[in-house]
Parts: sequence; C-alpha cells; structure tokens
Amino acid sequence: MNKFAVTITPRFYETDALGHINNAVIAAWFEVARVRFLESLGESEPSSAKDWILASFQIDFVAETFYGQDVVAKITGAEVGNSSLTVLCEMLQGDSVTVKGRAVLVHMDTSEKKPARIPDWLREKVAAYSS
Amino acid sequence: MNKFAVTITPRFYETDALGHINNAVIAAWFEVARVRFLESLGESEPSSAKDWILASFQIDFVAETFYGQDVVAKITGAEVGNSSLTVLCEMLQGDSVTVKGRAVLVHMDTSEKKPARIPDWLREKVAAYSS
Amino acid sequence: MNKFAVTITPRFYETDALGHINNAVIAAWFEVARVRFLESLGESEPSSAKDWILASFQIDFVAETFYGQDVVAKITGAEVGNSSLTVLCEMLQGDSVTVKGRAVLVHMDTSEKKPARIPDWLREKVAAYSS
Amino acid sequence: MNKFAVTITPRFYETDALGHINNAVIAAWFEVARVRFLESLGESEPSSAKDWILASFQIDFVAETFYGQDVVAKITGAEVGNSSLTVLCEMLQGDSVTVKGRAVLVHMDTSEKKPARIPDWLREKVAAYSS
Repeated sequence: MNKFAVTITPRFYETDALGHINNAVIAAWFEVARVRFLESLGESEPSSAKDWILASFQIDFVAETFYGQDVVAKITGAEVGNSSLTVLCEMLQGDSVTVKGRAVLVHMDTSEKKPARIPDWLREKVAAYSS
Repeated sequence: MNKFAVTITPRFYETDALGHINNAVIAAWFEVARVRFLESLGESEPSSAKDWILASFQIDFVAETFYGQDVVAKITGAEVGNSSLTVLCEMLQGDSVTVKGRAVLVHMDTSEKKPARIPDWLREKVAAYSS
Repeated sequence: MNKFAVTITPRFYETDALGHINNAVIAAWFEVARVRFLESLGESEPSSAKDWILASFQIDFVAETFYGQDVVAKITGAEVGNSSLTVLCEMLQGDSVTVKGRAVLVHMDTSEKKPARIPDWLREKVAAYSS
Repeated sequence: MNKFAVTITPRFYETDALGHINNAVIAAWFEVARVRFLESLGESEPSSAKDWILASFQIDFVAETFYGQDVVAKITGAEVGNSSLTVLCEMLQGDSVTVKGRAVLVHMDTSEKKPARIPDWLREKVAAYSS
C-alpha cells in the first residue's frame, strides 16, 4: 500500500484559550492533507481542487494536539465509488495518534456542474492507497 | 421542544477561491452554535466552555453556502448520555438547508481532568431540546 | 459626520493560548468592518468588494480584546485621494478602545485591472465620514 | 547580518473569493514568522511567546499572493529599544516581493504584567539582524 503524509507545524494563532489547537483548525488541516493528496495523484495543478466537492467529513478527537511539536497527517486509506472518493486520515503528534478523519468527496464535471464518474487512470492510482 | 438558533453573517474572508464559504469555516461556525447553546443552558459564564471537550463531529454539506446572505444555525436536537452530550445542528441560508452537523461532547471534571456525569439540572434543560 | 459601526461577537475559536483574541483575528475583523462600510456606501451588492484592493493596513493594539463581550468596530474617518480611500477604525469592548486601525484601499477598474478614479457619487458619500 | 526565514506553503482554505490569499491570512503568516524568529533567538521553548505582546503592526501589500507556490517570509531587520523590539519582514513568492511587514513587540515581565527591559543577551542576538 502506498503512503502519503503531510507534515504540519502548528502555528501559535491556531491555539485557543484552552491552550491546545482549536478543533476547527483540525478540520482545516484535514483539508490540507486531502488537497495535497489529490494533487499528488497527478491532478497536480492546483486548480484541480475544483474538480472535487466535499460531501461530508467526520473527525474524531483521540487526544489533544498542542503547539510546539510537528503533526504528521497521514492518508491511511482511500476508496472509490462511482463518482465518490472516501479518504481516511490520521494525525500524529510524536508517537500518539491525536485525530482520525474520514471525508467523502465527489468528483465533478465542472462544466456540467454534476457528479462525474472517476476516470480509470485515477481509480488505479487511488487503488494503491486502499486500506 | 425548545429551540435555539444563532444567526451568522458570512464574512468575506471566510470564502475561498471556489467562491463559496470554505468547509473548514463551517466547522468553526458549528463551534459557535455549540458554544452559545451550551452557554444558553445556564452555564452562562464564558469559561464554562472549559467544562466540555469535543469528542467528535460530523458535517454533511447539503448545499453550498455563499457570502452575502445570513446563515441561521439551529440546534435541532440534543441527547445526553452519562457524561456525553450529542448536539445536532442545521444551517440554513434563505430557505435552504445547506449544512447538517452532529457533535459529541464530553462533560469534564476540570479539576480531575476526567469525564464527569452530566448533572441533573443540566439533563433537564437539555431534555427540552431532545429531537 | 456620519457614523458607521459593526458589532462583532467574539467567537471562542478566535482566542489563542494567551487567553485573548488573537492579533490576526483583529486583522480579519477589520476586514469585516471595511467591507460592510464599503457595502453601506451603496455599492451594496457583495461583489462590489471586487472593485477595491487593499494596499496596506496598520493596527495598533491599545488593549487586549477578550472572549465574552461584544466588540463594536466603528469607522472613525474616511478620506479619498484620486483612486485611494483611507479608512480609520476603532474597536471598543465595553467602554474601552482596544484597537485602532488604518487601511488604504485602491479603487480598481476590474476590467482593466488598474487603479481608477473614485467616482463623484462615491466621493460625496465618503465625505460624510471625513474625520 | 544574520538571516532568518520561514517557508510557508499556502493552503487552499487561505484563499478567498477574489482567488488570492486573503489579507488577514497574511497577518497570520506574519505572526508565524515573528514567533519562529523569537523562538530562534534562544527563547526556544514555545511558552516564550508569552514574554512578548504585540503593540502594533503594519502590512504593505506589494503584489497579490497566490495558492500553488511556496512563500518565503524573511526577517529583514530587527531593532531593539528599551523594552520594544521592531521586526521587519518581507514575503516573497517566486522572485517577487509580495508583502512587507513591520511589527513592534514589547517585552513583558509576565509575573508583573508590565514592560521589562530586553536583557543584554537578547540584545546581542538581535543586533546580528539589524537592518
């Protein structure tokens, strides 16, 4: 199975008054991991983000994330449907998993503005990340 | 059933290059709705947010949300477990539901830093919002 | 002199680990005040924000801003040059001024993508806010 | 003269509907550059950010910043007063300077909550970055 990971250095303004990284920031980091993963699949020009819409996502907070230590956001699985792509993600700080995420994206025909079957070349690439 | 809602006026910086409100901003707005709902339950001093941790949340994007029109974030249900509280939320822009959210919070004993049973007076208040 | 003000209710995620509203959030609130002020001048459709670019801004932090009390962002002055518009802003929390801001915007001909003289009808409107 | 720089990879959610990086995000990136610069001076533990408050900052937008290419935020000067520290920053995308920033910080005695003279060891370190 192929692996994809992004390293994120927490920023001070991403903390909140509870002293840890705010939960909405984690949702934003998950977008960073997803978008870079999609770009890595060979839809490499930034505009390719426009080919996908986010249908839903879920985040489980396993442990707090803190300022002062890098976070590694790993894509831990990816599954294709007809036009949908489910992406699993784990974030680790040090040796601890702090976050588990799951997002469902839909591949769009941007000219017709409706869902479009994920092309075969992309299915093959995603298959290498199947959990 | 009691109702609770927060009106949010989208801000220009909350848009992204796709021309709509960014998905991570929706996660942040969901926090706004949850925190104000908790405060409205009579844990009215702002610091009471410290009595809760967020265990998980899920967001379904039913339709795009745009700049230029107010969003109403309604609490559409709330259920208590022993120390957990599940909060359901819908966001509407105009007459359209654009977002559905579900969050699970855990009530904490902040001195012991562990989950604490939700007190009866709070259970009664939450019961009025049961879906 | 005409007056324009926007009320902003601080959001929990806008705090940082120092326990107050983060300084970058203040920059974002200043955008909220500026954009709504411009919209109020009769360029009322949201897309009118596209007629302006931000050339520079300065923020003085007079006092800390906290979660738990509304902030009023007042436009305290506005001056037009040929294509430039200088906007002054003060933010108050309770009776205290916490922030002073100054921004310089440039009116753009969006089709030609270059600065364009501010039209007379807009000059007259801005004149009512001159400090 | 010593040099300090931070590389920032723009994130999709940091764009706005004008298609570029939002101006308030630039203010946030400036915080990233400042905080890491302060940490690099040997006040290396993250909590040292608490020794400083931000008195003011100014940002000049020289050119638009876009998604899709790394930004290098360079500290281009630093000057100490008695308790104040002025930090100059330039951000480049490719070969172009897109942003110039200037911030004034005040060194705090955190137990007394009042300005404190910048210690000599720190003055010497900052001197190496004088513009």
